[in-house]
Amino acid sequence: MTLGKVIGTIWATRKFETTKGYKLLLVQPLNGRLEKTGDPIIAVDTAGAGVGEVIYFVTASEAVIPMDVDMAPVDASIVGIVDSINSELN
Amino acid sequence: MTLGKVIGTIWATRKFETTKGYKLLLVQPLNGRLEKTGDPIIAVDTAGAGVGEVIYFVTASEAVIPMDVDMAPVDASIVGIVDSINSELN
Amino acid sequence: MTLGKVIGTIWATRKFETTKGYKLLLVQPLNGRLEKTGDPIIAVDTAGAGVGEVIYFVTASEAVIPMDVDMAPVDASIVGIVDSINSELN
Amino acid sequence: MTLGKVIGTIWATRKFETTKGYKLLLVQPLNGRLEKTGDPIIAVDTAGAGVGEVIYFVTASEAVIPMDVDMAPVDASIVGIVDSINSELN
Amino acid sequence: MTLGKVIGTIWATRKFETTKGYKLLLVQPLNGRLEKTGDPIIAVDTAGAGVGEVIYFVTASEAVIPMDVDMAPVDASIVGIVDSINSELN
Repeated sequence: MTLGKVIGTIWATRKFETTKGYKLLLVQPLNGRLEKTGDPIIAVDTAGAGVGEVIYFVTASEAVIPMDVDMAPVDASIVGIVDSINSELN
Repeated sequence: MTLGKVIGTIWATRKFETTKGYKLLLVQPLNGRLEKTGDPIIAVDTAGAGVGEVIYFVTASEAVIPMDVDMAPVDASIVGIVDSINSELN
Repeated sequence: MTLGKVIGTIWATRKFETTKGYKLLLVQPLNGRLEKTGDPIIAVDTAGAGVGEVIYFVTASEAVIPMDVDMAPVDASIVGIVDSINSELN
Repeated sequence: MTLGKVIGTIWATRKFETTKGYKLLLVQPLNGRLEKTGDPIIAVDTAGAGVGEVIYFVTASEAVIPMDVDMAPVDASIVGIVDSINSELN
Repeated sequence: MTLGKVIGTIWATRKFETTKGYKLLLVQPLNGRLEKTGDPIIAVDTAGAGVGEVIYFVTASEAVIPMDVDMAPVDASIVGIVDSINSELN
């Protein structure tokens, strides 16, 4: 999983049917020091995350698992909201 | 999912059977500021996207889900057309 | 999918059983301007591609789909031969 | 699989149900000389790893296999603890 | 698939059950000219490869296919030993 921060929302009216009930968030990946790393990705929100929160997201086929549909063309989902990080890096 | 802009069309007469009804588009990945990032990829269009439109695409196994066939050798599909982005980055 | 050019052939006598009937080609990934990008990969040929041709390949689990076997340890397959590219980039 | 060192722990109370019994560790990927390479990732611990240990982790769909649940939105798991590396690089 | 050279062996006594009969090798990825590219990865050996040999490996879910078990948390396997490469690059 990858650390990230929710930085925005994507609006799309023309999108695939099974993803229609889900919010699409713009997520900036972060490193262990919570610094930006790489480009933002779009993730489905399954954890109730809001803009500004530090979260972790899962990618690839596993991204469909937290959704209430059998199959959805989704490759990134927010699956947890981070309370704190205990790290040698901090 | 990844933001991108449709920048062209790929023509291929010799291609795998189950992908024959689908348009192949050349897509430039974009970051949260809609700036180019990385090299263009080829995606199957399942959202009715046209050249010049900002879209988001899904990769890996999930790319087959929006197609009307059970199995297709496809690893990237356009699944939504972006209306707007609300972002701290903008 | 990714654009590429067939640049060579790999010979391997000791290889996994289900892949024995397939040709292994060395493929240089290309960007939208048909310039080299990144390192060559090895792909199974399922489209009848020859050295020098511009093709597109699929990666990950989808790479097994065009093969005549149920399961094969393959993560990249050539699935189409490009006739032409219409692109704003050209 | 990728070599890594456990460098921290992630705490998240709001997380997906099937992952609740598992510890989330922050892992710094390492190269063959045990030098840092790239950004830390978050992995589920299925090997009883502790902070400071050199481990290897598996990514993508395979990351769910060592867990006691059928499906979990997980894309990286620690699956072994390294005793030693015999390498031309050392 | 990716070209690589076996450069070492990983020893791990605490590892996931279904992977216990398999040797874990450290593999340096190579480009088409057999030059090093990127960091070494850890692959399961299913082809009888030895240190110093040029091989190709498969990644992601396909890496489990050559193993004698149904499911194993493995994301890279050596599936062939390269005899020769005929390439425009050489």
